[in-house]
Amino acid sequence: LSADSPLAVPHDALFGAHNLPYGVFSTAADPRRRLGVAYGEHVLDAGAAARATGAPAELTALLDAPSLNPLLAAGRPAWTRARAAVTAWLTDEQHRTAVTGALTPRADAILHLPFEVADYVDFYASEHHATNVGRIFRPTAEPLPPNWKHLPIGYHGRAGTVVVSGTPVVRPCGQRKEPGDAAAVYGPSVRLDIEAEVGFVVGAPSPQGGRVALADADAHVFGVCLVNDWSARDLQAWEYVPLGPFLGKSFATSVSPWVVPLDALAPARTTPPPRYTEPLPYLDDRAAEPPYGLDIALEVRLNGHLVSRPPFASMYWTYAQMLAHLTVNGASLRTGDLFASGTVSGPARDTRGALIELTWNGADPLDLPDGTRRSFLEDGDEVTISATAPSAAGTRIGLGEVTGRVVPARP
Amino acid sequence: LSADSPLAVPHDALFGAHNLPYGVFSTAADPRRRLGVAYGEHVLDAGAAARATGAPAELTALLDAPSLNPLLAAGRPAWTRARAAVTAWLTDEQHRTAVTGALTPRADAILHLPFEVADYVDFYASEHHATNVGRIFRPTAEPLPPNWKHLPIGYHGRAGTVVVSGTPVVRPCGQRKEPGDAAAVYGPSVRLDIEAEVGFVVGAPSPQGGRVALADADAHVFGVCLVNDWSARDLQAWEYVPLGPFLGKSFATSVSPWVVPLDALAPARTTPPPRYTEPLPYLDDRAAEPPYGLDIALEVRLNGHLVSRPPFASMYWTYAQMLAHLTVNGASLRTGDLFASGTVSGPARDTRGALIELTWNGADPLDLPDGTRRSFLEDGDEVTISATAPSAAGTRIGLGEVTGRVVPARP
Repeated sequence: LSADSPLAVPHDALFGAHNLPYGVFSTAADPRRRLGVAYGEHVLDAGAAARATGAPAELTALLDAPSLNPLLAAGRPAWTRARAAVTAWLTDEQHRTAVTGALTPRADAILHLPFEVADYVDFYASEHHATNVGRIFRPTAEPLPPNWKHLPIGYHGRAGTVVVSGTPVVRPCGQRKEPGDAAAVYGPSVRLDIEAEVGFVVGAPSPQGGRVALADADAHVFGVCLVNDWSARDLQAWEYVPLGPFLGKSFATSVSPWVVPLDALAPARTTPPPRYTEPLPYLDDRAAEPPYGLDIALEVRLNGHLVSRPPFASMYWTYAQMLAHLTVNGASLRTGDLFASGTVSGPARDTRGALIELTWNGADPLDLPDGTRRSFLEDGDEVTISATAPSAAGTRIGLGEVTGRVVPARP
Repeated sequence: LSADSPLAVPHDALFGAHNLPYGVFSTAADPRRRLGVAYGEHVLDAGAAARATGAPAELTALLDAPSLNPLLAAGRPAWTRARAAVTAWLTDEQHRTAVTGALTPRADAILHLPFEVADYVDFYASEHHATNVGRIFRPTAEPLPPNWKHLPIGYHGRAGTVVVSGTPVVRPCGQRKEPGDAAAVYGPSVRLDIEAEVGFVVGAPSPQGGRVALADADAHVFGVCLVNDWSARDLQAWEYVPLGPFLGKSFATSVSPWVVPLDALAPARTTPPPRYTEPLPYLDDRAAEPPYGLDIALEVRLNGHLVSRPPFASMYWTYAQMLAHLTVNGASLRTGDLFASGTVSGPARDTRGALIELTWNGADPLDLPDGTRRSFLEDGDEVTISATAPSAAGTRIGLGEVTGRVVPARP
């Protein structure tokens, strides 16, 4: 393989052979949406590669699609077969010539929402985040609510406003009423924030009235993306009692364009932090092997400046516990369901995944290297969340990034 | 028209010519799902009728479909044309012979979920309900939260577990911890409840970053259904602080099979109750003509016994206010979005729309005429919510019913 071949991907590339995340792309020359696999600096047109290599018809049908949904719905045995096939196409000499024609430079690829989001659930699984938020909003009370250590708290978000990385985020308007205000006022949010999260994409559905046990989580979870759960803290503070966040969140949720298969994250498996309380049996993962924690290292950049390194390994509740809890009441899963972890915050200040924590609700603003100062987001600000994880080769794989720029509120 | 013609529908029939609700049906002999219009004791196969009458191709395409979604997406001018056409087919002599072959007895129709639910939002728009719940849970505090009179409180529910009337409801399991309990326990809900609600079906979408003004609500809302938002009060009470209801609601939400077009409810327009506070401009409907209140009379039956008559006309917030609020932050609408009113409760005890209010959280159980007593639902119980509204003819139209029977929790 010559060094200038698009298939000559370095051993330690973030999008190398141990990663192979899926996305949906088009190009200016060919606006059809099609399934792609990121490899090095290129995107493999998965459907075109399946045809060029004479793949079985069933596999070709799953890959020759305008979204990930057909592959998601096909279940884990099909996911394993597809990953093995794509790996062989990109790395076995016999296929290289055939698939080279199915490669597009990533720089030329227009990336779209990789799957049709069914229901979107957001959890609150970081003890450090929940504790910080509790201390900020309820300084004289116990920071964690009484239920926090017994169940992964979650709520439903708006699936219809999940957008792909790069989509501008319009500053939301709404009502706010700060504690000293005489009346509620209407206007653009003045405390616009981010939440750096990890999202889990459900592939195989489950029936209503059934449950997904911890040990069955991986039969349903296809893979992982990055999530920025944009949050208008002022709208949220006024609206959220008693039924939870609504307009403070529902204006936009951004996701990364590349969904990393759970298989690629096997080397990232790690034991979650010890639990304080005896988990109820449906949440008891203490004997799970491999464990369900994931050592994913996030980075948050504000206008290009690194402001936080949230460690996903520090999350109290795991994705398997979130899924077991989500379905323990008989709620069904649909292909395309997305559940996110909630803000990932570690114990140190520079590992917090939201501005409200990084600036302690504005009391301690961030001074950026370019001389600017931020408590919350200003119009024009760009936030980028990226992540990496250990790979099977002892190097690291990338989860790509989710980015978005704030544009002014509409008049 | 002979009296035994299926088209001889009495002037005062609940499903007469002034109603013409849409649903999706199949039959044992023909399992294809198809769009139907209820008329008297029959269902008109709308696609077959369009073909039989030589309707324009665009209209036929909207009606010859396995769900309401294509018609929903087409927008209000198309809704008006479709309603005029169906009215003519059923009531004009020239079409009667052609459409008679497209009629199926309603008793033979298997009714399905009439549309694909995109996002499901539930509001909390009844002052009486919110006050009752506040008094039950926070007896020493102001019953209404401080934001209640300023905005229609709402939250997102689980779209994937919205089911059509008649679907059995499996008693959910989950965690509960009553105030005196030493620890959280896991098991089937012991306080399973109903919420009698009115749901609004969004047809025409709106863009992300935009807003739907009060005056534009009817360009987006296609029609109305009945909703039973089944609620496990014990799960809900333990989980809902701080992010709102989750598993206490997400196991099942039942909807009526017939969606009544907003046009059919024009005679039900009524002025909502006076507002306590000056509404912010985006919610100020005091000059709206016609008003957005709807005089829909609900009835709740438990095992066949009438237990409540909730009056939708008493709702503080209207559907137009709910929609204006839902989108004021730039949240987009999708075809198939469903938003529900929250429990409809009037001021009198026998007009409350949930058992928790009717029995004051079990302190004052309901004695039913068959000698049984209920605080919350027992396995085998059947709940049916039905409703009527004034018609253009001075009679009443029916919204049909949403019914469901509780089946035991899965082991």
